[in-house]
Amino acid sequence: MPRFPSSTPSISAIPSTVYSPLAHRLSHHQGERFPFHVGDTWMEPPEGCRMEDLSIAENPGMHRYPPVNGVPALVDALCARSEERHGVPTSAENVLVTAGATAGLGSIAMAVVAPGDEVLLLAPYWPLIAGIVRCVQGVPVPVPLFHAGAPSPEQVTEALAAALTDRTVAVYLNTPNNPTGHVMPRDVIAAVVRFAEQHDLWIWADDVYEDLQFEGQHVPTRALCPERTFSCHSFSKQAGMAGNRVGWIAGPKVGMDEVRKAALYTLYSAPTASQLAAVRTLGEAGRAWAADARTQYAHTAKEVAGLLGTDVPRAGTFVFMDVADRLDERGLPGFLADLVEEGVLVAPGHSFGPYPTWIRMCFTAVPHDATLCGAKILARHLGR
Amino acid sequence: MPRFPSSTPSISAIPSTVYSPLAHRLSHHQGERFPFHVGDTWMEPPEGCRMEDLSIAENPGMHRYPPVNGVPALVDALCARSEERHGVPTSAENVLVTAGATAGLGSIAMAVVAPGDEVLLLAPYWPLIAGIVRCVQGVPVPVPLFHAGAPSPEQVTEALAAALTDRTVAVYLNTPNNPTGHVMPRDVIAAVVRFAEQHDLWIWADDVYEDLQFEGQHVPTRALCPERTFSCHSFSKQAGMAGNRVGWIAGPKVGMDEVRKAALYTLYSAPTASQLAAVRTLGEAGRAWAADARTQYAHTAKEVAGLLGTDVPRAGTFVFMDVADRLDERGLPGFLADLVEEGVLVAPGHSFGPYPTWIRMCFTAVPHDATLCGAKILARHLGR
Repeated sequence: MPRFPSSTPSISAIPSTVYSPLAHRLSHHQGERFPFHVGDTWMEPPEGCRMEDLSIAENPGMHRYPPVNGVPALVDALCARSEERHGVPTSAENVLVTAGATAGLGSIAMAVVAPGDEVLLLAPYWPLIAGIVRCVQGVPVPVPLFHAGAPSPEQVTEALAAALTDRTVAVYLNTPNNPTGHVMPRDVIAAVVRFAEQHDLWIWADDVYEDLQFEGQHVPTRALCPERTFSCHSFSKQAGMAGNRVGWIAGPKVGMDEVRKAALYTLYSAPTASQLAAVRTLGEAGRAWAADARTQYAHTAKEVAGLLGTDVPRAGTFVFMDVADRLDERGLPGFLADLVEEGVLVAPGHSFGPYPTWIRMCFTAVPHDATLCGAKILARHLGR
Repeated sequence: MPRFPSSTPSISAIPSTVYSPLAHRLSHHQGERFPFHVGDTWMEPPEGCRMEDLSIAENPGMHRYPPVNGVPALVDALCARSEERHGVPTSAENVLVTAGATAGLGSIAMAVVAPGDEVLLLAPYWPLIAGIVRCVQGVPVPVPLFHAGAPSPEQVTEALAAALTDRTVAVYLNTPNNPTGHVMPRDVIAAVVRFAEQHDLWIWADDVYEDLQFEGQHVPTRALCPERTFSCHSFSKQAGMAGNRVGWIAGPKVGMDEVRKAALYTLYSAPTASQLAAVRTLGEAGRAWAADARTQYAHTAKEVAGLLGTDVPRAGTFVFMDVADRLDERGLPGFLADLVEEGVLVAPGHSFGPYPTWIRMCFTAVPHDATLCGAKILARHLGR
């Protein structure tokens, strides 16, 4: 019972930093800085989709509360987009605009995780998801699978089965994957879906990198299993507006009714102006921006992977690599501290699952040339 | 265990509408509409503090992630403001910028309410707070006090003592009060503080209407008890930017460290552009706007109270009144439905505590003349 001055045990147990415990040191660094620890982009959002493009003359009341569910023009556009991409009938009762995909997943967790319930996290995973599950008194259960290439559907099913207990309520998957840059093929996603169906689990599909797949077609999980999938999306990556805090969820009415309540009470709504900007990205300007980002990111990804000697990411904004053979007696903290001395910040592997000797580097946080410059410092520390 | 297709029992039990179950009907209404059910303002934000005033030329990267704790210029300004208003030393470790006060209170609840814990809510209360407590598996305990004038400190202490159990962890108070427009005097706040100190409770002080007190000086609870008070604030009301979703919390480091974690994992950050706009309101333009809002709101409040025969609100944007003697066999739902027929939406009393025959009307949602026009319709239904 967290009377003053105590707090909830589940929260006390969560680490207070995710992307780097050393970030404060970078602010004191004198030379060039390479903030590769957070996933962001150096690109400004598409022209016409920026805050300066939104006037009260054109949008009177644009600083007032929006409808809780989202600005109607955005909700309508997202229904159409989801229907087209997922091949699933999608109306306003299936969609909720959220204050970023992060808040969306927070609301999903509140809605379907009771204290002590377990959520299977296909790992490596987006690092906030484990903390989200803990924040609602649930238990995150990492299922390590995708760090070393492409497991078969059978391997995936086997790993999920080994982690299942009678407290398991949901399975979380993220494709294209943060941090690996891998893309799950259809048969692997189908195996996850079949497993969820067999064991009455909800599916949390984190699709926020869907528009940053460099080649081939993204397979949306909701297309395979609309009745139990919460499909989570964001404008942060696809339009370079992470600071705007707008994402959305598409899912079955039976679940969305409850997710909507959690969001209503703990967030009220996503920001109005950010939603108006988001609507604008769904047209040609946004498509062109995403195509340009894919081209530029793919180019940088290839060169960075070459420098570091890793697989070339097939999507997204990260490389993930094991640096075990470069660690001295100080372990990963020492390796990270040495990098910070040269202005380079990367995220520690334990944030992504049981990967205490791995690191994640974002290759889109600063422009191409600066990224290569920082990657060369990292490559030197890797002995390459 | 909420496996598909079930959800968390605590969420299932929460009502899905707060401000009006009839809001959808208003959109079909042909004549003039009076959306008095949500608390908002017809005024546009101060000039110079709108989205159109924020350019990437002046603020490169303004659509990217901000620091989790808040944009540094805003955090610094809020430290200075809190220190001045509360008379309490306040540094960045005491402050967190949140995606609205709503999200701030959500993070506080996550941080200090364990499943089954109880939170005393001085009632009538801001309606989302009960749902917030339920969202984190806590139990909201209304302590009805302020609906009928001004209780003495002794009465407040007595009512709190009657509601206390061994599961009580916190007490929530909101002054200036939504929905009553009352202002708690210093001796009443001091009684709440003393009670919290005696019983090791956290204090959640909801000060979002602090700049909308029409006369006299707001008494901030944190000034009386900085070591255990989470002081919750918002730019929504004081600068007419509810859609921007920016608020902040000031509190003791020991609690803020945990609140910060809950916010990090379930929200990541407040919107960047909204924070840049918020900084701008803390100067002269914002002060002038708030002064103008106070004058205009006080004027409308007086006329509305005259029309409806209620006490004149001393602060804020609402009147709260018992309409028991105007209800027929259909009860409050019938009364609300009759109002909607004439384009008037108000919020039902049960959202604010045990007030099944009360209604709340926002008198700042539309301009003065339109407000009076709608208030006259309401007055007719009240038989005045």
